[in-house]
Amino acid sequence: MSQPIITLTTDFGHTDSYVGTMKGIILGICPGATLVDISHHIRPQAVQQAAFVLSTAAPHFPPGTVHLVVVDPGVGTVRRPVVVQTERALYVIPDNGVLGLVLNQEPAQKAVHLTDPRYRLSRVSATFHGRDIFAPAAAHLASGTAPGEMGEPFAPSDLVPLPLLEIQAPSGGHWRAEILHVDHFGNLITNARPSNTGTPTAIVVGGHRIAKLSHTFGDVEPGELVAYTGSSGHLEIAIREGNAARTLGVDIGDPVQVEGWR
Amino acid sequence: MSQPIITLTTDFGHTDSYVGTMKGIILGICPGATLVDISHHIRPQAVQQAAFVLSTAAPHFPPGTVHLVVVDPGVGTVRRPVVVQTERALYVIPDNGVLGLVLNQEPAQKAVHLTDPRYRLSRVSATFHGRDIFAPAAAHLASGTAPGEMGEPFAPSDLVPLPLLEIQAPSGGHWRAEILHVDHFGNLITNARPSNTGTPTAIVVGGHRIAKLSHTFGDVEPGELVAYTGSSGHLEIAIREGNAARTLGVDIGDPVQVEGWR
Amino acid sequence: MSQPIITLTTDFGHTDSYVGTMKGIILGICPGATLVDISHHIRPQAVQQAAFVLSTAAPHFPPGTVHLVVVDPGVGTVRRPVVVQTERALYVIPDNGVLGLVLNQEPAQKAVHLTDPRYRLSRVSATFHGRDIFAPAAAHLASGTAPGEMGEPFAPSDLVPLPLLEIQAPSGGHWRAEILHVDHFGNLITNARPSNTGTPTAIVVGGHRIAKLSHTFGDVEPGELVAYTGSSGHLEIAIREGNAARTLGVDIGDPVQVEGWR
Repeated sequence: MSQPIITLTTDFGHTDSYVGTMKGIILGICPGATLVDISHHIRPQAVQQAAFVLSTAAPHFPPGTVHLVVVDPGVGTVRRPVVVQTERALYVIPDNGVLGLVLNQEPAQKAVHLTDPRYRLSRVSATFHGRDIFAPAAAHLASGTAPGEMGEPFAPSDLVPLPLLEIQAPSGGHWRAEILHVDHFGNLITNARPSNTGTPTAIVVGGHRIAKLSHTFGDVEPGELVAYTGSSGHLEIAIREGNAARTLGVDIGDPVQVEGWR
Repeated sequence: MSQPIITLTTDFGHTDSYVGTMKGIILGICPGATLVDISHHIRPQAVQQAAFVLSTAAPHFPPGTVHLVVVDPGVGTVRRPVVVQTERALYVIPDNGVLGLVLNQEPAQKAVHLTDPRYRLSRVSATFHGRDIFAPAAAHLASGTAPGEMGEPFAPSDLVPLPLLEIQAPSGGHWRAEILHVDHFGNLITNARPSNTGTPTAIVVGGHRIAKLSHTFGDVEPGELVAYTGSSGHLEIAIREGNAARTLGVDIGDPVQVEGWR
Repeated sequence: MSQPIITLTTDFGHTDSYVGTMKGIILGICPGATLVDISHHIRPQAVQQAAFVLSTAAPHFPPGTVHLVVVDPGVGTVRRPVVVQTERALYVIPDNGVLGLVLNQEPAQKAVHLTDPRYRLSRVSATFHGRDIFAPAAAHLASGTAPGEMGEPFAPSDLVPLPLLEIQAPSGGHWRAEILHVDHFGNLITNARPSNTGTPTAIVVGGHRIAKLSHTFGDVEPGELVAYTGSSGHLEIAIREGNAARTLGVDIGDPVQVEGWR
């Protein structure tokens, strides 16, 4: 059997030992695990951004991968730690909606509330459930423990839904999308998915109008604004060889007006 | 036998090839090693911060892990490269006090000055001992070489001590702690350890007074200051869903006044 | 056989899932691969900086390592995805000069244009060739596929050359070098290589004159400027325990005047 894979997505950053500590716990329980970082630079407690980032990476991992997500405004409160099984993968998450976009792609088959103390550390702190609950659970799953052994099953339909930004019905004849994520290059990823719903004729963002949907960066000159369907299937806006977020002065949550949507 | 684990803690950042280069050297000597990054964002030459970060991660790794630390104001001067063995782990470090907090948790059993040229690169540069001395030593240890074969043993009591910030005796009736580390979320980690020494009745930091020690973030409203015993056992100060360091304008080394300490 | 090693060098940063996604693709094709990050903080599309960073890391990896580089101003245009074989390693790169400094150290033996659709994803997006072309190619190479099976061989002399900054012929009696890279500590790495060409008697940068070439940081007091031959063999300028780039107000591409060069 090949080595089990565990991915990690958190808002912990790279300055502290939080991520390394979780990996130490995992390797103690599942010595052969291959550990892959998705991102540790999700904005603090930004469940929606984490949901997007996870949904773009998870489908590209081999079947059976365990995805561990700790972006958790609710640590120290009552939200549930859960494992969700789909036909492709296992997800160890706080039950706060972070799996919402993934479950649009691959429906949940099983959900379990992680309550069994055998699969967490013997002392659970009030503030670091990533170390004490989520990392041990992911490692036990990667070692072959069945989700159902680790706590109380419940109906996947009872998972907390993602307060998902959906493209809004037209007002004054135009659809209103929002910026879901700003990537490392300053590209703007929106919640509009052209492949599902049609091809816009124009996009307005940060006071600038883009008159068509292009195929790729190469369709415009360096320094020009370009809108295209990104590698994730979402409508994106970029400046070729530039930084659209900085140049336009926009950020996550800002509106994007889409014309000729349907 | 499971794969040996080597962790890395440096102030090298992620922009350069320094960390990747050390990993290349390690994998050439110990091909099966599992490499885990603790942090590469220790502030330049901040031995005390490195000591704290290492001490929070190391206890969570499996026995026999090799921990490699390169935070080294002394590169190019005469400080010793050493390996220190405890009952849990092996530490490859510059002898500058960086192991101080770890050794409070797990005493040194053996210390060796890394002098044997067989266990370093054939050419040692003046400026990159991480690549030329520390990485090869860690890889040889992970491959099973005994520390005593790699240089001159010396008494662990001769290791350079950490100029450790200790909570200061009361002045005007109050104890004075200091900020040891600011984490990714802006939480302030202090050198006070309530579990060892009592429960403070109030904490004053950056001109703000916190009237009690809470159990967790959830005990206060979003945006409020909260003091609690963190997952590392140290007194921490945070703003729930906020950034305490930025809001209070404080940083590493700033004072924290503790009332009712004992 | 030991596990194959694949290194990754990109300008993707750590915020997004781009790097994690490439690793998922790789592990699906080559389950046993050991993945090592060189840097994901190359400045966007900075081919020259990537060339430098790669050239400092690659020689320290075991023979047979596959180095994957995705720093690619040309994504969405017509530059070729290629694999280049040297006597030490395999390089999967966009053909844009990024291998220029490496090939000064280890000449290219073979170059192949990656055209065979069996070694890329079934759907190739317009914007994410790292995921769709480069990662699968690296994984197939690491799994043992010969470069020649993956596309059309061509003469290595037809690889796009690096528009390499070379130290300029003297003007007014002085040689003119440039800053090639600024590292995490603010140290300035130049394109001058003293070991090849002589020992400068003085260096002028950002309006400051350094009167000699030192051996190491330890030759000057903390806070002082120091010039030395760095671990990469390039002339570097630093401030001991300080940040030269910030203090001098200089950056990549700025001039460095070298006196007494030959």
